[in-house]
Amino acid sequence: MLVVMQSHASREQIQKICERIESLGFRSHSVEGTERYAIAVTGDLHDVESCGLEDMPGVQQIIRISKPFKLVSRESKPDDTIVRFPNSDVTIGGSEFTVIAGPCSVESREQTLTIAEKVAQAGARMFRGGAYKPRTSPYAFQGMGVEGLKILAEVRERFGMLIVTEAVDIEALEAIEDYADMIQIGARNMQNYSLLKRAGRSPLPVLLKRGLSATLEELLMSAEYIMSEGNRNVVLCERGIRAYVDHSRNTLDLSVIPAVQKLSHLPILSDPSHGTGKRDRVTPLALASAAVGANGLIVEVHHDPDHALSDGPQSMLPDQFAVMMSQLKGILPVVRRTLPEPLPKARAAVTVVQP
Amino acid sequence: MLVVMQSHASREQIQKICERIESLGFRSHSVEGTERYAIAVTGDLHDVESCGLEDMPGVQQIIRISKPFKLVSRESKPDDTIVRFPNSDVTIGGSEFTVIAGPCSVESREQTLTIAEKVAQAGARMFRGGAYKPRTSPYAFQGMGVEGLKILAEVRERFGMLIVTEAVDIEALEAIEDYADMIQIGARNMQNYSLLKRAGRSPLPVLLKRGLSATLEELLMSAEYIMSEGNRNVVLCERGIRAYVDHSRNTLDLSVIPAVQKLSHLPILSDPSHGTGKRDRVTPLALASAAVGANGLIVEVHHDPDHALSDGPQSMLPDQFAVMMSQLKGILPVVRRTLPEPLPKARAAVTVVQP
Amino acid sequence: MLVVMQSHASREQIQKICERIESLGFRSHSVEGTERYAIAVTGDLHDVESCGLEDMPGVQQIIRISKPFKLVSRESKPDDTIVRFPNSDVTIGGSEFTVIAGPCSVESREQTLTIAEKVAQAGARMFRGGAYKPRTSPYAFQGMGVEGLKILAEVRERFGMLIVTEAVDIEALEAIEDYADMIQIGARNMQNYSLLKRAGRSPLPVLLKRGLSATLEELLMSAEYIMSEGNRNVVLCERGIRAYVDHSRNTLDLSVIPAVQKLSHLPILSDPSHGTGKRDRVTPLALASAAVGANGLIVEVHHDPDHALSDGPQSMLPDQFAVMMSQLKGILPVVRRTLPEPLPKARAAVTVVQP
Amino acid sequence: MLVVMQSHASREQIQKICERIESLGFRSHSVEGTERYAIAVTGDLHDVESCGLEDMPGVQQIIRISKPFKLVSRESKPDDTIVRFPNSDVTIGGSEFTVIAGPCSVESREQTLTIAEKVAQAGARMFRGGAYKPRTSPYAFQGMGVEGLKILAEVRERFGMLIVTEAVDIEALEAIEDYADMIQIGARNMQNYSLLKRAGRSPLPVLLKRGLSATLEELLMSAEYIMSEGNRNVVLCERGIRAYVDHSRNTLDLSVIPAVQKLSHLPILSDPSHGTGKRDRVTPLALASAAVGANGLIVEVHHDPDHALSDGPQSMLPDQFAVMMSQLKGILPVVRRTLPEPLPKARAAVTVVQP
Repeated sequence: MLVVMQSHASREQIQKICERIESLGFRSHSVEGTERYAIAVTGDLHDVESCGLEDMPGVQQIIRISKPFKLVSRESKPDDTIVRFPNSDVTIGGSEFTVIAGPCSVESREQTLTIAEKVAQAGARMFRGGAYKPRTSPYAFQGMGVEGLKILAEVRERFGMLIVTEAVDIEALEAIEDYADMIQIGARNMQNYSLLKRAGRSPLPVLLKRGLSATLEELLMSAEYIMSEGNRNVVLCERGIRAYVDHSRNTLDLSVIPAVQKLSHLPILSDPSHGTGKRDRVTPLALASAAVGANGLIVEVHHDPDHALSDGPQSMLPDQFAVMMSQLKGILPVVRRTLPEPLPKARAAVTVVQP
Repeated sequence: MLVVMQSHASREQIQKICERIESLGFRSHSVEGTERYAIAVTGDLHDVESCGLEDMPGVQQIIRISKPFKLVSRESKPDDTIVRFPNSDVTIGGSEFTVIAGPCSVESREQTLTIAEKVAQAGARMFRGGAYKPRTSPYAFQGMGVEGLKILAEVRERFGMLIVTEAVDIEALEAIEDYADMIQIGARNMQNYSLLKRAGRSPLPVLLKRGLSATLEELLMSAEYIMSEGNRNVVLCERGIRAYVDHSRNTLDLSVIPAVQKLSHLPILSDPSHGTGKRDRVTPLALASAAVGANGLIVEVHHDPDHALSDGPQSMLPDQFAVMMSQLKGILPVVRRTLPEPLPKARAAVTVVQP
Repeated sequence: MLVVMQSHASREQIQKICERIESLGFRSHSVEGTERYAIAVTGDLHDVESCGLEDMPGVQQIIRISKPFKLVSRESKPDDTIVRFPNSDVTIGGSEFTVIAGPCSVESREQTLTIAEKVAQAGARMFRGGAYKPRTSPYAFQGMGVEGLKILAEVRERFGMLIVTEAVDIEALEAIEDYADMIQIGARNMQNYSLLKRAGRSPLPVLLKRGLSATLEELLMSAEYIMSEGNRNVVLCERGIRAYVDHSRNTLDLSVIPAVQKLSHLPILSDPSHGTGKRDRVTPLALASAAVGANGLIVEVHHDPDHALSDGPQSMLPDQFAVMMSQLKGILPVVRRTLPEPLPKARAAVTVVQP
Repeated sequence: MLVVMQSHASREQIQKICERIESLGFRSHSVEGTERYAIAVTGDLHDVESCGLEDMPGVQQIIRISKPFKLVSRESKPDDTIVRFPNSDVTIGGSEFTVIAGPCSVESREQTLTIAEKVAQAGARMFRGGAYKPRTSPYAFQGMGVEGLKILAEVRERFGMLIVTEAVDIEALEAIEDYADMIQIGARNMQNYSLLKRAGRSPLPVLLKRGLSATLEELLMSAEYIMSEGNRNVVLCERGIRAYVDHSRNTLDLSVIPAVQKLSHLPILSDPSHGTGKRDRVTPLALASAAVGANGLIVEVHHDPDHALSDGPQSMLPDQFAVMMSQLKGILPVVRRTLPEPLPKARAAVTVVQP
């Protein structure tokens, strides 16, 4: 912590600040500049906010220096975290680029299997689909619940894709642990600390989406909540922030990806579907996400988006998804990543459902 | 919903849009402008997003018209909601201006009673204090839990102030129902729909804080979640939004207060403590909140903010609080509100704790 | 400037940073914390950005401390600036609350005189009205130019109100110097430095509006541009910032007012007309601006806003303006300000134009 | 324009709205929905804001439909604009990806020629460098002026690169016309309409940067100002917007690039140097810009950024620039763009200055 004094602060005022700091159990180090004094404060400041220094006579400003995160920090673990899954060679965080695809919501067995087949054949190695939906309106479709989870489990069985699905509360999280491979914490729940702590005690990896107005530090602190309970398999996800912009649903903040990679060892994905909210922008922003160095993508795909129960306007068609996958193959080598081959079961799959 | 066509859209394209609308069970009404056509869509559109019209040839833009909220809307209930409490003459939402004050966190019995006595004597009729704290860091003080609730109950007993305290999850909410008079849902949980639904089944009134980047519509939709479960006693609270601004912790959006009052019958308070994050700005913004027409305030007061376990820098001193209360008395008549007298028990209270 | 080192930075890395700082002609002061080192840099750093330290091995972050403003700073001039005008007792910045009112644009002599009479009678002491209009569209009404200035001069002659009007470029500024009492620099031109420098050489006081996304520091630096050329009569104006909010045209950031008053000696007004963009919110936000401590208001008034050539939806009616003025009288004593009586000429004025 | 009525609006209120619309010379078309009426308004509405309808009894909301831009619109010119330069095969806007590189400021002949040689050899076809600098502080380096322009002209002479440099006012613009190939209008001047109009009468193409908080519509309207004066060679540039984000200087809004390309025929570049403000993020965001479909880049390069007089921290080193160029070659084919070969003079250039 640094206490910056006003330019006309008196020696006596500076002296009082130093005494106060020492009386609180910290050490003070005063630094004389050409225009003003500053006083550095050292000691274990983690629980301290400003010690009331801000209002003392002669003080101009308090600047916090210590970063509050520990386990998520690259300082604490210099090498990249690679999340692995039991009985699968899918990874997130290494040299492979991981694509998660599927509908916004699990709406029916037929819809889900149809989409799953298409995305598996095009090379997706993980499948997404909401069984519990956080909707702005209480009157909108809220998800199929456990029935949806069973359909997702069937997707894994048939196509070999791993399943990631969102937990909106602790009850949903516990059901998801029985059926899925990875728990998603959505943007609206990024600071639902009870849910984060429970996810921290889960054996499953967690996909943590950035909140709509979360800073990088807040995102990392939410990951710290999960890790502090013991779960080290956390994957972050940029999914667009809220800015004044009105030409897209959210503003995909791609510069957060190298910023996360500098500060933390955790992998980070990009979600261009929520990040843009418009189907025709998903592919351009997906390619940009790969080029900027993301560890993978999570995208919404629907074979019949006009009748989707949620997020239809931002869902890609299966054909668009397949084109995007082939374009990614061209871009990834430039950033030293590879797109793994489709899963063996996906290659073997014959058409299982009639559109 | 309105489908705006491109200026060069053909008659055939317009015809196809109309056919599509009709095939989905809605009615289409085409309107010929000087530059372009538009097609109005009517019918029960609540669950519909865009019906896939956005990508059809010739379409420029889709504009949604229907507001999705029902119970919170002033259209559904033209007169102001006045929240009342059993066995108390405290109200929120009528001509009285309701002041809620207290520390950020309940830290100890002595701290809490000391502050309670001061704010009660200065005229606060409701008391705040967190027993469960949503903290950005997992390593920061997380609240005293049920022990804190018991201290709050003692505050009500001694001074007659009603108790409002934050529920961070369903477990906390259920404990709060046993001890407090009003449940607060904090900004971080404004879209924690499971918690909102549970609050909607509580007999206690709910104080719902606006999320850091929530639109007016999203705030009202979260209130709709609570009301749709049966609880009609919802009070909204503006507590600052996140903007690019760096001179204050958050940006208090006072214009949302008349905006809420136009669209909804629900009362709305202002929280200038979180809204500014700086002690010396709480009073100016509190007075501004009264002048703009808020139904009351919720402010943080601490007798020893330098040693507060949370939010010290933004907590007012008891003396500042008392001055603010007397200034409010000058301002409120201009907006036809009154500041009620201190509670009888507060006036009767003698010093109960030794500082 | 403070160089914060990574927690694992080596002694050698710290040594190299210090050497680099010294080689650039500054002094280094290293501070050992519990987790990491920091190195304070002192010397005349005004033109220095980061000296390339940011990329040196072991560096975590660079923090700038020195505030770059000089003349605008309260450190350089502790007492409030009070702007005075020749041959007039109107002031801005002291205990009087100064209200500037008038139409967005000067549209005709009749329109302008009609509005001027009404606002003068209700107590406005300064008159606004655009003769040069910065419009988003090149096809919108761009103002009457010098003809408009002549009408404004007639307003001063008849009613005694001082005239403030916007300069969109240097040519307009020079014409305004011939006719008006104060030059307005609009939000879009807050960082038009050529215009600011020219305004700094004008004998007239300058009303400088905050840009839509300007920080407090940027606003003060723009005032510094004007003052650095010799003109000490600068009045700032908050007129709403751009946030994600969609319920009002802009977001009036009232907390900037006490923030400016802490850092600077310059007066600051509030513009609730642009700040909200909606007629029915101008009065509530005007009252809030008075309560928060602004030195005055600038508001748009139009007797026939439905036919206004610009900003009709946010212009108050003359009757609303008169009510607002009487409400201000109730609020101002609370913040130790007074609303001066209407000007003598305004009181004497008989109806001069036929509506 | 669409007038949305309140759900309880009476037939009489609807009737009055229609009469008002007709009396203003427009046509009204009422549309009956399940919950409420809406009234479409047609006619030449370009100068109309809301006709005072917003405050009439029964009105819920006014929605504008017509887009105000004409010449910039893809509706008015369906094929992409390709900007060409006399006596050069450099283009902006076609299948070639155009890279503009150079220092933030022209600081000296030696500095400029050194950087020019490096970027020319690496394949830049246009050169940037500020001779007139808009600086936040009046005490910061303001540029070399005409001397700087002469140095830029020497760069063109020696290496064949075309010159783009910023005009901060009309005087600077007129000097630039004598020496450069393209006029840059910076972000701070995006709504300096006098400057835009003058640029619209220039024979040189204009590079128009998006303002820090400009919407897509405002950016296009500023381009419309230039085009409405006759200059059809306008190139847009995304350079980062201001959001709440604190991990980078600005937030590069890459989704605006496909959004512009859908609405307008004008080319659009990306500026990852200002967009991020940090050297180590320029390359990742440059690659992302190429992948998202930008027509080119403008980046800052400095051979000795630690001693740069401006923007040192965000300037790439020449070697980083060369690596970025080779990475772009890998990405561009995926989006059907090509990176042209270095200019003949650049290939021929021998080392002209001693570092």
